[in-house]
Amino acid sequence: IAGGTPKGIPLDDKFHIDVERCKEALDNAAVLILNSPGNPTGAVESGESIKAIVQYAEDKGATVISDEVYEHFVYEKKHYSAGCYGDNVVTINAASKTFSMTGWRLGYVAGPKDFIEQAVKIHQYCQTCASSVSQYAALAAYNGSIACVDEMRREYAVRRDLLYNGLKELGFDFPKPEGAFYMLVPMDRKQFEKILAAGVVAIPGDAFGENAVNYARFSYAASRENIAEALRRIATAV
Amino acid sequence: IAGGTPKGIPLDDKFHIDVERCKEALDNAAVLILNSPGNPTGAVESGESIKAIVQYAEDKGATVISDEVYEHFVYEKKHYSAGCYGDNVVTINAASKTFSMTGWRLGYVAGPKDFIEQAVKIHQYCQTCASSVSQYAALAAYNGSIACVDEMRREYAVRRDLLYNGLKELGFDFPKPEGAFYMLVPMDRKQFEKILAAGVVAIPGDAFGENAVNYARFSYAASRENIAEALRRIATAV
Repeated sequence: IAGGTPKGIPLDDKFHIDVERCKEALDNAAVLILNSPGNPTGAVESGESIKAIVQYAEDKGATVISDEVYEHFVYEKKHYSAGCYGDNVVTINAASKTFSMTGWRLGYVAGPKDFIEQAVKIHQYCQTCASSVSQYAALAAYNGSIACVDEMRREYAVRRDLLYNGLKELGFDFPKPEGAFYMLVPMDRKQFEKILAAGVVAIPGDAFGENAVNYARFSYAASRENIAEALRRIATAV
Repeated sequence: IAGGTPKGIPLDDKFHIDVERCKEALDNAAVLILNSPGNPTGAVESGESIKAIVQYAEDKGATVISDEVYEHFVYEKKHYSAGCYGDNVVTINAASKTFSMTGWRLGYVAGPKDFIEQAVKIHQYCQTCASSVSQYAALAAYNGSIACVDEMRREYAVRRDLLYNGLKELGFDFPKPEGAFYMLVPMDRKQFEKILAAGVVAIPGDAFGENAVNYARFSYAASRENIAEALRRIATAV
């Protein structure tokens, strides 16, 4: 888009951003896309990392686009919002994950005034607006109690442990996700296809870029029963 | 878009497409956008015109994009769908006008298989999908009785006559709209601004291209009471 070339920044062995590597990439970048809590890794970046990256980007004149749609699904750590550390940050969020409202198709963007003015022009022609029905529903959700979100966070934490421990017992070794509701599990294409054939849906890692080949993404936004059943099928398949 | 340059084709004095002029334009065109019933004119093209244009476009290898969102709001004439006369036609329609569901943001496209395959790629990244709530609502609307649409057509016809006769009495002289729920009324910028200042909302003609300067578009998708009130205010303003 706009003549840019996307480049992935390899993560460290805990799926975290290597701040020094990120700074190097920023030396020649116009835009950095941050995503913490991360899809597909489930990694949550520390406040120190976010702050260092945003401030370095600001010095270099690069815009940070911070996708924070999983901000409410952080299990042991804390969420840090990039927009707190600089002015040249565009924050993306949505009702989709926070309130389990994916089908309602409503998100929002916060950023510098001149950026938003330009973005609205594109938005007008591509979308006009989100459905008015969805806008009223989201208004009720954001103005309502956050208790349902807390409840889902606790539930996702249980599901994460269920799936993570199950996969570990089956011999898969990978960092425990700290947020979102995904895990990125190392496996070769053959294993992946056996699991798929057993009726367990996962996304092949290459859908997430060249750095994620030989991984597969599993979602635990599924009932405990279905996760248990999936683990049984994976055990039989691999 | 895609390096194309949009060119308006001047209409005849009844706001209809001049087929010969349209053919000339097609000699150097990749795409023709047809819109009958038309916004902002309210003109409805004859079957002969649509057929002649689509067949000529097909011969020249130009794609016809036919916006037919007002197809159900034709008052004395009949609606002819461009897609009936050729294969290289992309038909655009929506629940928005047909079922007064503008806020639900759901439309559809019908066209050649290879066109749709490419369009889906863009759609996936720009929209993902229409809201699931809207999809179920539209499903109910399209599978339900058409009686409510017939009722609105009869009502719009009454409103059209109310607004058209009122404007004629005030001295505005223009072709009577045959469809949709708009009228394109000739007036200079001064008159337009007086009417706006009187609290009657209209759209300046230049929003519809260089051929519509010195016109203003009025919508009669408003209650009879509001149309009567608007006429009173216009009478005082001009």
